[in-house]
Amino acid sequence: MWSCITNFFTYETTKSVVVKSWTIGIINRVVQLLIITYFLGWVFLYEKAYQIRDTAIESSVMTKVKGFGVYNNRVMDVADYVTPTQGASVFCVITKLITTENQVQGYCPESEKKYKCTQDGDCTKHLNKPGGYGVPTGRCVPFNATMNTCEMRGWCPAEIDYIKTDPMVEVENFTIFIKNSIRFPTFNYTKGNFLPTITANYIKNCNFDMVENTYCPIFRVGDVVRYAQQNFSVLADKGGVIGIKIGWMCDLDKSDDECSPSYSFTRLDAMSQGNVVSPGYNFRFAKYYKMDNGTDYRTLVKAYAIRFDVLVNGNAGKFNMIPTLINMVAAFTSVGVGTVLCDIILLNFLKGAEQYKAKKFEEVSDTPPDSKASGLYCSQLSIRHDDVMRSSDSGAFSIERYS
Amino acid sequence: MWSCITNFFTYETTKSVVVKSWTIGIINRVVQLLIITYFLGWVFLYEKAYQIRDTAIESSVMTKVKGFGVYNNRVMDVADYVTPTQGASVFCVITKLITTENQVQGYCPESEKKYKCTQDGDCTKHLNKPGGYGVPTGRCVPFNATMNTCEMRGWCPAEIDYIKTDPMVEVENFTIFIKNSIRFPTFNYTKGNFLPTITANYIKNCNFDMVENTYCPIFRVGDVVRYAQQNFSVLADKGGVIGIKIGWMCDLDKSDDECSPSYSFTRLDAMSQGNVVSPGYNFRFAKYYKMDNGTDYRTLVKAYAIRFDVLVNGNAGKFNMIPTLINMVAAFTSVGVGTVLCDIILLNFLKGAEQYKAKKFEEVSDTPPDSKASGLYCSQLSIRHDDVMRSSDSGAFSIERYS
Amino acid sequence: MWSCITNFFTYETTKSVVVKSWTIGIINRVVQLLIITYFLGWVFLYEKAYQIRDTAIESSVMTKVKGFGVYNNRVMDVADYVTPTQGASVFCVITKLITTENQVQGYCPESEKKYKCTQDGDCTKHLNKPGGYGVPTGRCVPFNATMNTCEMRGWCPAEIDYIKTDPMVEVENFTIFIKNSIRFPTFNYTKGNFLPTITANYIKNCNFDMVENTYCPIFRVGDVVRYAQQNFSVLADKGGVIGIKIGWMCDLDKSDDECSPSYSFTRLDAMSQGNVVSPGYNFRFAKYYKMDNGTDYRTLVKAYAIRFDVLVNGNAGKFNMIPTLINMVAAFTSVGVGTVLCDIILLNFLKGAEQYKAKKFEEVSDTPPDSKASGLYCSQLSIRHDDVMRSSDSGAFSIERYS
Repeated sequence: MWSCITNFFTYETTKSVVVKSWTIGIINRVVQLLIITYFLGWVFLYEKAYQIRDTAIESSVMTKVKGFGVYNNRVMDVADYVTPTQGASVFCVITKLITTENQVQGYCPESEKKYKCTQDGDCTKHLNKPGGYGVPTGRCVPFNATMNTCEMRGWCPAEIDYIKTDPMVEVENFTIFIKNSIRFPTFNYTKGNFLPTITANYIKNCNFDMVENTYCPIFRVGDVVRYAQQNFSVLADKGGVIGIKIGWMCDLDKSDDECSPSYSFTRLDAMSQGNVVSPGYNFRFAKYYKMDNGTDYRTLVKAYAIRFDVLVNGNAGKFNMIPTLINMVAAFTSVGVGTVLCDIILLNFLKGAEQYKAKKFEEVSDTPPDSKASGLYCSQLSIRHDDVMRSSDSGAFSIERYS
Repeated sequence: MWSCITNFFTYETTKSVVVKSWTIGIINRVVQLLIITYFLGWVFLYEKAYQIRDTAIESSVMTKVKGFGVYNNRVMDVADYVTPTQGASVFCVITKLITTENQVQGYCPESEKKYKCTQDGDCTKHLNKPGGYGVPTGRCVPFNATMNTCEMRGWCPAEIDYIKTDPMVEVENFTIFIKNSIRFPTFNYTKGNFLPTITANYIKNCNFDMVENTYCPIFRVGDVVRYAQQNFSVLADKGGVIGIKIGWMCDLDKSDDECSPSYSFTRLDAMSQGNVVSPGYNFRFAKYYKMDNGTDYRTLVKAYAIRFDVLVNGNAGKFNMIPTLINMVAAFTSVGVGTVLCDIILLNFLKGAEQYKAKKFEEVSDTPPDSKASGLYCSQLSIRHDDVMRSSDSGAFSIERYS
Repeated sequence: MWSCITNFFTYETTKSVVVKSWTIGIINRVVQLLIITYFLGWVFLYEKAYQIRDTAIESSVMTKVKGFGVYNNRVMDVADYVTPTQGASVFCVITKLITTENQVQGYCPESEKKYKCTQDGDCTKHLNKPGGYGVPTGRCVPFNATMNTCEMRGWCPAEIDYIKTDPMVEVENFTIFIKNSIRFPTFNYTKGNFLPTITANYIKNCNFDMVENTYCPIFRVGDVVRYAQQNFSVLADKGGVIGIKIGWMCDLDKSDDECSPSYSFTRLDAMSQGNVVSPGYNFRFAKYYKMDNGTDYRTLVKAYAIRFDVLVNGNAGKFNMIPTLINMVAAFTSVGVGTVLCDIILLNFLKGAEQYKAKKFEEVSDTPPDSKASGLYCSQLSIRHDDVMRSSDSGAFSIERYS
């Protein structure tokens, strides 16, 4: 029992061979220095491994667009050209409209050229398939003085969407005001993109740019499009999706002032650019009205728009004991990895490698060795190292090969 | 000083015991083989640990629904049945409507049966509580020829939502067109779900299915519902939320063609199915009109809808030196873990375990051993291994037990 | 060839020194106990390292607001004050309205005081800049009997947004009904926030609170605002964004009943509170009408609202063999880290440290040592340990210093 306890409270450490060689000593220290430099420089200073990190950022985005455009001889304000209206992180600024007024439920000719016909027989193939703007009836009716098209049932008259219209050029000068408030829940740290250094007066007059006004929360649409490396005229004509990314990379060990947003811009529907199939971004919606007799009629609008997605991501770090300790332990143990490299050099490429091997490795085998002349007691354990040592006593030296 | 430097440039490596035993040798190599196979097969080939990964996918989704339905003897088009209209990643396709036309502000009877009454006293209990469709006044008024209900103030007449109506069956054949453009910012890699192999002609005619047309970006509503293992009639009647998931798992070391989207479908509000409390998905909205005299009136719509959420996730990997090196080091050091297992076998279960122990462990204790007959100089350091070796000289062999 | 195979199937293990010292033995075991306790207690029991985790929660949120408010002598219902109407995870409850009725396209004076003028010359400075509510014309026209302002072209009359109005106080008693269905795709585990213990009857009458009804899915707006530590009157007057967070932390090894949602509330636009520049949350939208002669007119609404964002996050774990094995290996190898500490103590601070060093370290150098009197064969390999051992035979004991 007592010996059990005695045996339990022992300490086992590895037996080491200390090689006093300048070559391997310097290699060893250089390798250790490299590993320590890596850990100190990269892991601790650059990657900030001594911090705990919070990437689960809570974010709230409010947006407000300002500016007036003239389209179809009407002045358009924010309630006319921004949708959805709630000022959330995703919103569309309409740049071009194809408006079909006074649509009522009824029967009328299709407007698309592929529904051209000369007799009812041409239209029966469209039956039981979705038509262009309504349900086909299978009849051929006059579309205008010179052309007949297949008749359909639905909202009449049908939209004519191949008319060329120009986009609203004033959109380029519209401004987007972005209010972004973030919180890192792990550290209960709250901040907004209105930095404390920003005054009410500054906000009234500033415009974001990449050089001087990197923290101004007001963005000219034209600038945003340019920073996303797009051509405004093309984008306004076809529509598209622009991402406004707000990055919050915060080192909370530093001063609060250094936790600032960084803005970047990119076209999100980049695929649309090079694709002939379905370029750009547009959607249809309707405004509904009622006649005095209660009949519904509507204005159908096909809107080409620039959609803006405000994307917020963040990453905050703060000193914490646990990751510091864990990474220090990792650093110390990694220093030992250098031993693998040094061992390879020591045992293979260095002068005297055989001797080092003899010293580093002791052999033990489970088969009885050939009986020795010395008449020594032979256990199943043949200790070659012992042999070496006894040999040195007798002046004869032999080293067992270890491959 | 010099000796300090000499001592500094030394190299320390562990002294090893090499066991020449077939049993343990084979076990050792098999364990090492397993560990190497695990690292090569699982970590490197399957998990692709030689790559850096980017999961912060930037995605832009545009959707467009097509099709015509007939409901209440009216043809419904996309502007009528899709909401919100912007064609973003979340949209509802309305399948059933309960419409209450010509509501004006005023006083009228509640429509729900729980507000049935015979005299004003029955209605006072509803005062100061929210009513069914307005603010209760506490009076009992005739609802129709046979029934009285409590009066309320609000938009009149009140909606009657217990009338059974049929869903719009044509929704099953509507098609959803999804344009998805993604970007992996780490690699600045952009791609879209319109693969280069897709022609404009193919898109005009294709319909997604799981076998032949796995890359067609046009989805029949009926197919989507079926792939999500739902019954269309039930879903259209009660409403529900369907997730269309687009997964981009890309190995950017391979050809660009192999980075393709994979579509999957699931019902997101699965809870609703089995729950009696509040099944399905519906919402109310109103269209506002004005009479010639300026009085507001509205059409209240209770819409049952299938909501589609297009969810995009992605994960791209590309060869990089840093993770390759780190994982190779991890692999090499892990090979050493096999030693623990082999040591346990060697020192406990193998023939000659006692001898191996004697060879592996040297003992040193801080208490003076019992005085030996040989009159040996006794430091506080009693080296049992020495004893063993001396003993072997004298022909007497004893091995200290190590538990 | 055969010797090659023989040499390959050998097993190499480190030679260890077993120190039989109570001091270091106890330190060693205590350190090991601490490490094992850390792994068992923290890593396995607290962090549940034996589980694989799924954080890629699929979530579907439906919301429904109930309640009636009286504003401007009109009863407002959900179709009037909730926007967007779809009942998704983000919705606004309008608390205050500034309504400008019967706007038509035309020319009229600006309403803001900064456009005050006495002659046309005062207005030319506004030309080619965005005006307050339209495009400036450069003329000075009478705004009312006492004041002239610059004329603009746009929707007329211009909104007057500096009129003080009171928020709709009934909002405090509105209820938000949240239906949340989640799925952990890795485990194909689906659950909803309507726990099985909740009856239809309970839902009809319950209201969420932090003590008694922690699982009731119906939230009073006033309670939510209070739990987010906000003052309702201030919030309703200025507008703001409140986050309703639903957390699903599930241990799927336990009973299904223990996987329950936990609700928490926070103000997301916290920055707005302390900021004078642009406090609160509001947005503008318009309702469009048509006169009998086809002229468009609209009602412009500036709405102050409380926006609610329902944010769902989750984290489920389930027992799995692979992480269990990996972490057990990590635990066992980490026990070895204790050796570093013990070695430092053993070799520096313990009585007999020099002896321990002599036993632990064998020296080998690549320079020939000084010739010894014994006329021993001197290889380049000078083995000090041998010296020690030979010395002990001759009764003379010397320990080489190792610094």
